[in-house]
Amino acid sequence: MAQKPNIPKGTRDFGPIEMARRNYIFSTIRSVFAQYGFQQIETPAMELMTTLMGKYGEEGDKLLFRIQNSGEKASEAPEKGLRYDLTVPFARYIVQHREEISFPFKRYQIQPVWRADRPQKGRYREFYQCDVDVIGTNSLVSELELIQIVEEVYRRLGIRVCLHINNRKILAGIAEVIGAPDKITDITVAIDKLDKIGLEKVNDELRERGLSEEAIDKLQPILALEGSNAEKLETIARILAANEVGTKGVEEMRTILDLAKDQTLPIELDLTLARGLNYYTGAIFEVKALDVQIGSITGGGRYDNLTGIFGLPDVSGVGISFGADRIYDVLAELELYPESMLNGTQILFTAFGDAELRYALVWAKALRAQGVRVEVYPEAAKMKKQMGYADAKHIPYVAIVGGNEMEANTVMLKEMNSGEQRQVTLDTLCKILQNNLIG
Amino acid sequence: MAQKPNIPKGTRDFGPIEMARRNYIFSTIRSVFAQYGFQQIETPAMELMTTLMGKYGEEGDKLLFRIQNSGEKASEAPEKGLRYDLTVPFARYIVQHREEISFPFKRYQIQPVWRADRPQKGRYREFYQCDVDVIGTNSLVSELELIQIVEEVYRRLGIRVCLHINNRKILAGIAEVIGAPDKITDITVAIDKLDKIGLEKVNDELRERGLSEEAIDKLQPILALEGSNAEKLETIARILAANEVGTKGVEEMRTILDLAKDQTLPIELDLTLARGLNYYTGAIFEVKALDVQIGSITGGGRYDNLTGIFGLPDVSGVGISFGADRIYDVLAELELYPESMLNGTQILFTAFGDAELRYALVWAKALRAQGVRVEVYPEAAKMKKQMGYADAKHIPYVAIVGGNEMEANTVMLKEMNSGEQRQVTLDTLCKILQNNLIG
Repeated sequence: MAQKPNIPKGTRDFGPIEMARRNYIFSTIRSVFAQYGFQQIETPAMELMTTLMGKYGEEGDKLLFRIQNSGEKASEAPEKGLRYDLTVPFARYIVQHREEISFPFKRYQIQPVWRADRPQKGRYREFYQCDVDVIGTNSLVSELELIQIVEEVYRRLGIRVCLHINNRKILAGIAEVIGAPDKITDITVAIDKLDKIGLEKVNDELRERGLSEEAIDKLQPILALEGSNAEKLETIARILAANEVGTKGVEEMRTILDLAKDQTLPIELDLTLARGLNYYTGAIFEVKALDVQIGSITGGGRYDNLTGIFGLPDVSGVGISFGADRIYDVLAELELYPESMLNGTQILFTAFGDAELRYALVWAKALRAQGVRVEVYPEAAKMKKQMGYADAKHIPYVAIVGGNEMEANTVMLKEMNSGEQRQVTLDTLCKILQNNLIG
Repeated sequence: MAQKPNIPKGTRDFGPIEMARRNYIFSTIRSVFAQYGFQQIETPAMELMTTLMGKYGEEGDKLLFRIQNSGEKASEAPEKGLRYDLTVPFARYIVQHREEISFPFKRYQIQPVWRADRPQKGRYREFYQCDVDVIGTNSLVSELELIQIVEEVYRRLGIRVCLHINNRKILAGIAEVIGAPDKITDITVAIDKLDKIGLEKVNDELRERGLSEEAIDKLQPILALEGSNAEKLETIARILAANEVGTKGVEEMRTILDLAKDQTLPIELDLTLARGLNYYTGAIFEVKALDVQIGSITGGGRYDNLTGIFGLPDVSGVGISFGADRIYDVLAELELYPESMLNGTQILFTAFGDAELRYALVWAKALRAQGVRVEVYPEAAKMKKQMGYADAKHIPYVAIVGGNEMEANTVMLKEMNSGEQRQVTLDTLCKILQNNLIG
């Protein structure tokens, strides 16, 4: 080998099957987005470092990939880096293009992002994100639409899911009411462990995390929370009755649950949800697959100040992100990829000589004009090799062309699954493949 | 402004309309590729510098973007760079995955590439390439298929084109026959100027470029070449009769023209085509739009040793690349984008209060279940604002919901183009929008 080829650590090639599967996921998601009026945008892979730095915390800054022009002196151009997520570029996009945008702005974006994380199983340095957001309205109808989108996407993909929902204002209210406004994270982490370690150990942990006995006492009704969403919400409402932000959170939750009451997807009020707390200001969502242990496959929430960092304050929005890699794995594990998603070749014409090849090309042209996906093996080769090619590409039919067939103006059609063969005319073949096209 | 947002020089944001247009182009191209059994692959944005360096000449090396991990010491990791084209990553892919691939391998790839070129009008530092190749066969049926694909793609897009075709072996033969085997480029450049500057000045230029009087004399029949493709080819065949490589080129050209004789797309044998000469070894293609002056919008050719640089010799292939940015511009200039391509919202429900909003949400859900693309304005706002929103998004219908309509179980349907209004039931609305969906 002149040079053993390889790719950078943490990156992947996507072959034909993987691409077909990913295209299936994305096209399903996109067609649902379109039904709700969301429009696609794309931003450049590289952003100015001034756009990226300081947006992801100190750790995040270290995980940014910087870009340098080989021929350029460092001083010549402003520093650039690869996009780390789709949120910051989107915020930058809104501020930069605010004059062209008519709000509320419903956008989605499906693009790769890059992080210099230590590569490990299931964690890559290049991966796709798929974000959908509504910007410029406080209406909780946007939360409803995202819930409807989640339901419809997973219904179409055939994945059974549960949507967990929380509200940052409720968490803030609880923390205020028990007199520990700075302990939101500690409280949610503790609640999350309730199932695993039990009430007593949770209380111990809260003590270790610096909560007073009084605070822990006041938190007990929250830790004991159970029943339906309505029952839970009633308990929370009572506890937060005198707290302004908390009561606002309860109202938001009540409205969203009421708006979504006709949805068939299971929705669970879940106080342990605390994703990106410093970022979200209202509803918080997380979607979990019911039949696979894989964590969250979609998540997001409402934020009140996405664009403030770029000088445009008070732009409220709500959005969710579909985890493409995890959805890919769930569909694979549950064997939910439909055969048709491959959109592969339906029939291969064999070639055993120049005359046969030209005969096949005429048929291929006629079939393609009818919308059929056709390949002609491009050169004379052994039958075994050509059949092997059809097998490897999962082509369901092979048309064998020989002297007899050409004389009779037919082909010998072989169904690869059953091995059955029969002589057919072009008309018959066309009908068989068009049914196959629809079926 | 806290920070005026911007993007790096030579990069672009793509808004909803631009994205819809690009998606229309790519989905048209993809569905044609699928009809010929081509499969999509993707490679990582970053490749090892050892993969990229030395593949694009000295100038190309300078135009590579290098990538550095912010938190990583320079010595820790091998150097990485952004993909400069799709050809070298494809060659790397074939060698790396050769055990999994069943040849002939028909692949396409639609991804951005990055070049640190000086940005100028129409030249970007990030742009999409769209490459389609057949690897692992010498059959000229592959050339035919690419011609068929060109014809079908531009037929579907509605762009009238002419395909120019040449052959590197014919050019090599001519150069050998006139005794100037190292002057291929000079000869093609000179022929290309024939129309503009005339025979005499072309001959002067050939002299300046170092061709002998004898060579120039021998070249005159080539410079005088005219007539149909068959007539041109006959003349060339006569001139190259005693030359081995030239005669091989003539045979290839004859076969390809014969295979493509039933195509309706105009094909022109054009000896001035010399794209990437050092790279191509057989057929060379270039596609020009007939109704717009924009240069080549698709081009490519056959190469005999794509993967040699990565240690796998003798892998022949043929491929073409669709110029997405130029096709975009041609469609815009000729106003060929179909309205339906926007795949936009079909109807907007207005909102003037909570009861109206909830009424609209029920209708929206029913319509979406029938495949209609629906938006509900998410909050009460002035009529003018909501109508402005529908206008800005080119939404053709608005459903106005008021007390009367709710009582009558109807909506007031406004057709935005004509301004006509009428009260309709859900059933009627559904029929109107579904016709609109198909039409």
